[in-house]
Amino acid sequence: MLKPIFILNGPNLNMLGLRQPKIYGHQTLADVEESCRSYAEALGMTVEFRQTNIEGELVSWIQEAHGEADGVIINAAAYTHTSVAILDALSILSIPVIEVHLSNIHKREPFRHHSYVAPAAQGMIAGFGSRGYLMALDALAAQRRTN
Amino acid sequence: MLKPIFILNGPNLNMLGLRQPKIYGHQTLADVEESCRSYAEALGMTVEFRQTNIEGELVSWIQEAHGEADGVIINAAAYTHTSVAILDALSILSIPVIEVHLSNIHKREPFRHHSYVAPAAQGMIAGFGSRGYLMALDALAAQRRTN
Amino acid sequence: MLKPIFILNGPNLNMLGLRQPKIYGHQTLADVEESCRSYAEALGMTVEFRQTNIEGELVSWIQEAHGEADGVIINAAAYTHTSVAILDALSILSIPVIEVHLSNIHKREPFRHHSYVAPAAQGMIAGFGSRGYLMALDALAAQRRTN
Amino acid sequence: MLKPIFILNGPNLNMLGLRQPKIYGHQTLADVEESCRSYAEALGMTVEFRQTNIEGELVSWIQEAHGEADGVIINAAAYTHTSVAILDALSILSIPVIEVHLSNIHKREPFRHHSYVAPAAQGMIAGFGSRGYLMALDALAAQRRTN
Amino acid sequence: MLKPIFILNGPNLNMLGLRQPKIYGHQTLADVEESCRSYAEALGMTVEFRQTNIEGELVSWIQEAHGEADGVIINAAAYTHTSVAILDALSILSIPVIEVHLSNIHKREPFRHHSYVAPAAQGMIAGFGSRGYLMALDALAAQRRTN
Amino acid sequence: MLKPIFILNGPNLNMLGLRQPKIYGHQTLADVEESCRSYAEALGMTVEFRQTNIEGELVSWIQEAHGEADGVIINAAAYTHTSVAILDALSILSIPVIEVHLSNIHKREPFRHHSYVAPAAQGMIAGFGSRGYLMALDALAAQRRTN
Amino acid sequence: MLKPIFILNGPNLNMLGLRQPKIYGHQTLADVEESCRSYAEALGMTVEFRQTNIEGELVSWIQEAHGEADGVIINAAAYTHTSVAILDALSILSIPVIEVHLSNIHKREPFRHHSYVAPAAQGMIAGFGSRGYLMALDALAAQRRTN
Amino acid sequence: MLKPIFILNGPNLNMLGLRQPKIYGHQTLADVEESCRSYAEALGMTVEFRQTNIEGELVSWIQEAHGEADGVIINAAAYTHTSVAILDALSILSIPVIEVHLSNIHKREPFRHHSYVAPAAQGMIAGFGSRGYLMALDALAAQRRTN
Amino acid sequence: MLKPIFILNGPNLNMLGLRQPKIYGHQTLADVEESCRSYAEALGMTVEFRQTNIEGELVSWIQEAHGEADGVIINAAAYTHTSVAILDALSILSIPVIEVHLSNIHKREPFRHHSYVAPAAQGMIAGFGSRGYLMALDALAAQRRTN
Amino acid sequence: MLKPIFILNGPNLNMLGLRQPKIYGHQTLADVEESCRSYAEALGMTVEFRQTNIEGELVSWIQEAHGEADGVIINAAAYTHTSVAILDALSILSIPVIEVHLSNIHKREPFRHHSYVAPAAQGMIAGFGSRGYLMALDALAAQRRTN
Amino acid sequence: MLKPIFILNGPNLNMLGLRQPKIYGHQTLADVEESCRSYAEALGMTVEFRQTNIEGELVSWIQEAHGEADGVIINAAAYTHTSVAILDALSILSIPVIEVHLSNIHKREPFRHHSYVAPAAQGMIAGFGSRGYLMALDALAAQRRTN
Amino acid sequence: MLKPIFILNGPNLNMLGLRQPKIYGHQTLADVEESCRSYAEALGMTVEFRQTNIEGELVSWIQEAHGEADGVIINAAAYTHTSVAILDALSILSIPVIEVHLSNIHKREPFRHHSYVAPAAQGMIAGFGSRGYLMALDALAAQRRTN
Repeated sequence: MLKPIFILNGPNLNMLGLRQPKIYGHQTLADVEESCRSYAEALGMTVEFRQTNIEGELVSWIQEAHGEADGVIINAAAYTHTSVAILDALSILSIPVIEVHLSNIHKREPFRHHSYVAPAAQGMIAGFGSRGYLMALDALAAQRRTN
Repeated sequence: MLKPIFILNGPNLNMLGLRQPKIYGHQTLADVEESCRSYAEALGMTVEFRQTNIEGELVSWIQEAHGEADGVIINAAAYTHTSVAILDALSILSIPVIEVHLSNIHKREPFRHHSYVAPAAQGMIAGFGSRGYLMALDALAAQRRTN
Repeated sequence: MLKPIFILNGPNLNMLGLRQPKIYGHQTLADVEESCRSYAEALGMTVEFRQTNIEGELVSWIQEAHGEADGVIINAAAYTHTSVAILDALSILSIPVIEVHLSNIHKREPFRHHSYVAPAAQGMIAGFGSRGYLMALDALAAQRRTN
Repeated sequence: MLKPIFILNGPNLNMLGLRQPKIYGHQTLADVEESCRSYAEALGMTVEFRQTNIEGELVSWIQEAHGEADGVIINAAAYTHTSVAILDALSILSIPVIEVHLSNIHKREPFRHHSYVAPAAQGMIAGFGSRGYLMALDALAAQRRTN
Repeated sequence: MLKPIFILNGPNLNMLGLRQPKIYGHQTLADVEESCRSYAEALGMTVEFRQTNIEGELVSWIQEAHGEADGVIINAAAYTHTSVAILDALSILSIPVIEVHLSNIHKREPFRHHSYVAPAAQGMIAGFGSRGYLMALDALAAQRRTN
Repeated sequence: MLKPIFILNGPNLNMLGLRQPKIYGHQTLADVEESCRSYAEALGMTVEFRQTNIEGELVSWIQEAHGEADGVIINAAAYTHTSVAILDALSILSIPVIEVHLSNIHKREPFRHHSYVAPAAQGMIAGFGSRGYLMALDALAAQRRTN
Repeated sequence: MLKPIFILNGPNLNMLGLRQPKIYGHQTLADVEESCRSYAEALGMTVEFRQTNIEGELVSWIQEAHGEADGVIINAAAYTHTSVAILDALSILSIPVIEVHLSNIHKREPFRHHSYVAPAAQGMIAGFGSRGYLMALDALAAQRRTN
Repeated sequence: MLKPIFILNGPNLNMLGLRQPKIYGHQTLADVEESCRSYAEALGMTVEFRQTNIEGELVSWIQEAHGEADGVIINAAAYTHTSVAILDALSILSIPVIEVHLSNIHKREPFRHHSYVAPAAQGMIAGFGSRGYLMALDALAAQRRTN
Repeated sequence: MLKPIFILNGPNLNMLGLRQPKIYGHQTLADVEESCRSYAEALGMTVEFRQTNIEGELVSWIQEAHGEADGVIINAAAYTHTSVAILDALSILSIPVIEVHLSNIHKREPFRHHSYVAPAAQGMIAGFGSRGYLMALDALAAQRRTN
Repeated sequence: MLKPIFILNGPNLNMLGLRQPKIYGHQTLADVEESCRSYAEALGMTVEFRQTNIEGELVSWIQEAHGEADGVIINAAAYTHTSVAILDALSILSIPVIEVHLSNIHKREPFRHHSYVAPAAQGMIAGFGSRGYLMALDALAAQRRTN
Repeated sequence: MLKPIFILNGPNLNMLGLRQPKIYGHQTLADVEESCRSYAEALGMTVEFRQTNIEGELVSWIQEAHGEADGVIINAAAYTHTSVAILDALSILSIPVIEVHLSNIHKREPFRHHSYVAPAAQGMIAGFGSRGYLMALDALAAQRRTN
Repeated sequence: MLKPIFILNGPNLNMLGLRQPKIYGHQTLADVEESCRSYAEALGMTVEFRQTNIEGELVSWIQEAHGEADGVIINAAAYTHTSVAILDALSILSIPVIEVHLSNIHKREPFRHHSYVAPAAQGMIAGFGSRGYLMALDALAAQRRTN
């Protein structure tokens, strides 16, 4: 039986729609969750969508994905650049992990160019706003078909 | 109607008075809170004073200040030097933010010379012990008068 | 009237299928071109698909896209990491540019972590093999719908 | 009267036995706790054994050790390399602190070579798997005998 | 008997009001001097207020403070970032030294993040415009009361 | 008999007038060639004016200047910052070489501050737009008069 | 009415003709002043020509140019590489500033490759000996004609 | 049947004999080709000897060696130090690759100390002038005998 | 039959007891040897205990351990931080190697934080004075029991 | 006829005897001058002894030494580490230059380890207090005897 | 009369055949000596072949080569990367010096990419196993013929 | 009773007079020893003069100075820049240590600018050739008089 895709969101993403709308648009995180949910359904998948500001909680959710999920889509936000703990948590997973960023992190401050998520992720999608989540779902669905 | 000033304190500040009293003095954090409260009152302001050891909780409180506070005085302590998440949280605020440090961080270990709070703060007050909080309150009050 | 999407490929991509098949699979570049062409057709778009080993030729093709294309999907391969000339060429375009990499460049040697394409691109898709091109076409199609 | 030894474990150590068993073996953290407990008992000591994924909780437990413990054995895992907050918390303790790592961190990625725990620890034991905890208990017992 | 507070200003501060008024406001240095003078008077202190473009003259005035002043408030401006000579001069003083900057130097170009004044100063006040001088006077007055 | 001055232009300069006109103006490269030609004529000199996007072609033209030209004015554009091959080619010339840049490269991104052309050039003229070429012609003419 | 062009020279330029004549030639600074003066006259301009070894004096002269000059030609010599104060002084000017160096600083020791003058200058002319001053006068005259 | 050895030469090597003869001697590249050809013949081998100034052409020739050559001797000259594309092209070959340099690159400018060819080459021969090519042919012949 | 454990000591350890007794205590190296010997005997092991100031002699002893010892405990002292030769020698051993340091090298000067011994050692014990040798013997004995 | 030796002293040396007497002793600069004068007299030499806090004045005095002195002994103090202008001034001298420092600058903060005086000085004497001046006089006298 | 060629080998080369045979093969150092000896004989040369683990002994042998040898072939092994003393010793020789490495040091750990031997050597041969010694003998013989 | 001064010389100094005589002169080390001996005698001191190429031997001699010498003059030559072991040996001495270098190491290659001897030495004398030893003896004699 299919397990859900975990879509895990890091700090400040709960403020989406408030924070710098010129860059991130007016969509709230609830809107993003809703569009992920319906998009996944159309692909025959379910999603478990969560957000936290606490690094350790993100770590725990990644651990929970071990055995409970078929894939992980993670936007670790600020913790992308500082968290070795998240890297270690992701390293125990044997399911596909996709890293998503709303903005193109390679165009922002230098300290946002490095990712501790990347070494444990299959791929990165950055700069496509909330559509990046749907692109990640598409990629997981396509892989499921070819496997 | 006026909203309170959030005074947010980061990790280990709850140990104030215990930790290296030669540097930080014998005042406890409760003492600091009390003196902030009465000093603010004299300036016609109220304060919301909090402390946490958890980075993500500090992030959430900064988010809460959005709409609930007229200003933020933040001593992020150790997280000053490592937390991109706090920088991102502060960046969504449009109220004044003042960074306070008990000691002069520029005189300590090199890894304490860099601040992720600074790019999102109006100014920094460092090296004046707990008086720094009162100086920050003064600065906020003065700005309120001139606005 | 709609103009084609330029899909521009840099050095050694003509060897696809020969080079390290464990990483890149057995698909040849002609296969990739074919799947891009039919995928684009289904999305109501046409593609102009090219490959060159010469940095300056890539520069010229990017210049040609100015006025002749509705978007650029670029996999600059090795020149991603060394070519300021490609960055300069991309900077004159006002159409969307998407950077694609077959492998997750953030997991490879450090000199592959930096991209001169990124500052002039809307977003990056890396690590999804040749599917990355189709994901990029999808993203361009979706933007066309919303504009 | 003797106080317990705090044995504090950082993020992902709750996954022990699951994570890269080739490196870390098949022992779970509960097994480690059990062997620490019986080993300590034989040495006439008691232990308080805890694990958390949350940096701030680790900070709070270290603070709690102040007055409540006779020594601290800490495996801060990933936070070893990133947490100034843990360094600050350890700095207020006047009881012995021993840093333990399951693997030899000096043989792994460069970002694991630096320790923020070290400046506040008496010594480091790394590379002996879970036996490192017992070696640390031995060291504390030996010091107790000579003091 | 009380000695004056030396308020020493470095290069280009004589252009205050002319230079980038959006950042520094329309106040001239004479205005700042006047407000310092009256503010100090209210606190029962006198000030000796000077400005120079010459590094060596700043050094000489700091030396003069030795024995002639009860405290030094210094805004070394550009020399903050380049002058070992000023650091050496400040190091001979046993009176309190407070570093003031009109703008928050931590938000400007990287070469302005380092201060050669800091290692010899009690504290830093940055980002509060000319009010920073008054805050420094306040801090000196408060210390005088508690000593 | 006098030989021509080679004026060699690197990648993307063929787009002059299109690319960021706010910085580079509306003049096309043909306009620049024309004004160089007539300006040189007035100085009693002839010019050979070329542009290429291909690094190796620039190298070949520099080699051709050996024996065929009385001087070289080179705007290597993006290759200025990355091409050791151009440096090696210029090193074999014994005629004067002048480096020209339309913009002041020292005011742009850090990777544009380093020049591989400089070690083999007599001098650099940067920041004067297309007038820089005429200034270089003037300098060559003046040297011819004094030799 | 037209104001003069300030030609400001930094440390050791008064020794011109003495110092390393192989590199700098036998011309003295008085010779350079004379040729600037007559060259400017031919262009319908006047010059104010000065030299100092003192950084702060150079700062003061730049400040003086504000309102008193139509343009500044500056050869800050050694202070080019170390003086933030000169950068700050130049930043307040709204008249054109041209940076001149006798030798090609990019061919000398690495510490001479960085310029604090450049970020506040329109352009740089380096490596043409004292002719560089005349080239700068030409450039200013040409701009005057086109404005 | 035996295939030829590809001897591939990078930019500016066509100028051999002209360029800094004190370092490189008076031999032209045609002389080198001739001596390689006759030396190879004596060893029972044939050579395909080429030179180009264009990085991408060098890439294409390396690709051509895949299946068409029994070994590659490459002197990538300036591209040695800057070309990731050449590294990628060499990485697809399974025949022996030997890196040759006329001069000892470790004794020249620091930017010539790093080689992008080395990670894909069996060995390096540097500093023996054109004899290095013959030494490389010897090494290939010796390996052929022992295989 | 069991072979001895080699306990190899590097430069200046022969001065133990003389050198900075506050850090290293009053025990001499002969005392350490004696306590190692009796401790090993209790564990059913024998030790070969040596000291040298000469890097090359340490290298030779490590080579000698190949075939002559069941394990190596090495305190390379200053050579820990500078000797690639020791790393190379240790790399040929297939018996367990344990790195011991009297002081916690991570708390000392930065140049003592890097170890060339670590990449070839199973684990590190640092900061426990001469007890570290006994802890290492314990670890070897424990491994012998479990193998 | 013999010319004097210039003994030139940089910033803060006028405070000798006041500043950190534990490091520098109780001798004043006048005492040092006096002992230099009498020591030189005994060696048959005369001295010109000066001090300034102003970098540019030091530059001018060095220039004055050209033709007016037989040697220079310079203690540039803080300017040692920051002044390219002093390096340039010293470079024009053809008489012997000796660098003196009261303390051993190699034992102090890292920014005091680099000297801009050294590349233009015959030798350095550091760490011998004011005796260093006499040692420098001795060295000059000895050279005079052997020349 | 001809003098011998010194073939000097550094630390751990006496373990050849034992150490990582996959990389270095099964030949022992005695085998290498024997093949060098017979190869040299065929070329009409004699060799003095030595190995030591002690840096200082290598230094002494290099000094001995001064006057006693016609050339030096040196494989300094680990000391290649750390020994300034060997560089200084080689610098006094006026006979040809060839640097040999069994493996291609440019493909190994970064600390093996730098060579202190190279600045004093004519050329480097790396990556050809023990054949590199014979190639070096060939090169010396060829030079002898052309001189 | 007075003990001798140890004058300890590092690698290659035994070649003095042979090695680059333009820099180091024609004096041999025996000449230097002789002049030290007679100079010391005149000062009422005796010397123990030694040279070795072996780092560890230098370490042992420094240890021997502990109790056997009244002072150490050390020219560690190449080991100055690489030997932590020498630093550790010098650190146990409580007698004065003076560092001598024949040439001004601050004018040579960058890797010669750092000294591991300096942190354990009273002072440094560099650039005075063999006279530096006599200057060091003078300094020791002068200190003996004032103590």
